[in-house]
Amino acid sequence: MAHDLRDPARHLAREILEDIPLARAMQLRLHDYDGACLSLAAPLAPNVNDKGCAFGGSLASLLTLAGWALVVLALRERGEDADVFVGESTIRYLQPVWEDFRAEARPAAEADWSAFFAALDVRGKARIALDCRVPGGDDQPAATLEARYVAKRRG
Amino acid sequence: MAHDLRDPARHLAREILEDIPLARAMQLRLHDYDGACLSLAAPLAPNVNDKGCAFGGSLASLLTLAGWALVVLALRERGEDADVFVGESTIRYLQPVWEDFRAEARPAAEADWSAFFAALDVRGKARIALDCRVPGGDDQPAATLEARYVAKRRG
Repeated sequence: MAHDLRDPARHLAREILEDIPLARAMQLRLHDYDGACLSLAAPLAPNVNDKGCAFGGSLASLLTLAGWALVVLALRERGEDADVFVGESTIRYLQPVWEDFRAEARPAAEADWSAFFAALDVRGKARIALDCRVPGGDDQPAATLEARYVAKRRG
Repeated sequence: MAHDLRDPARHLAREILEDIPLARAMQLRLHDYDGACLSLAAPLAPNVNDKGCAFGGSLASLLTLAGWALVVLALRERGEDADVFVGESTIRYLQPVWEDFRAEARPAAEADWSAFFAALDVRGKARIALDCRVPGGDDQPAATLEARYVAKRRG
């Protein structure tokens, strides 16, 4: 893992914890970032539901933040100053999660960072589709998120 | 508002706060319940994002819990002992939310409680589709959730 990739990711994770009280309540932390995939982690205890497994809202929040952070880092790496918003997203809850968990964010199969940055250049606004997942048992996801994120240049 | 409807809803809201740490962090409370629509409320302060408006994860969590609570109450009113899980859900973030907010849950247009309870009777398992929304400005929703919930009889 290149030093210069993880440092901005760690910095962003600290910003998330400072700015978003719910991320602090979830005890979110950076798990990994390699320039293509970003993963955030959270312990089970502060994120349980009434059944003792992970609360759907915590899974949704970690998935949504992992995708958001991946887009923010891609923008920062290219020196772009833009706000990032999540648009439409579909979550599938596939397996209960009985332990500490993480959410991984990657571009969707149809996503194209070149087209994203070209659109941002021309229109000051661009969209990208991400596929995020919480890994579960038997190499199957415990939860998936398909989401579109929108970036808008500031100023 | 009938006394006998709101009492179980208030009781359920207390259970949610006891069982789900993230609901406590969000300062969730019951807003209203009339037997057909259930709404939960949350203050903005513990639910802000980096931009100072409501965090998408908080909106997703409140929407998901409002729907979950509506199904749990419908089951309890009929004396059914069943676990309720959220399955697939689609969230649309339509407007930023700059103040305290609430999430309202109702059955979707195609949903049918009679069919739901008939399926639960026959198979011990049933699904229902709900439409939830966070009211926003100009009588438009700030966020919507279309979700399927699954109930499974216990024991």
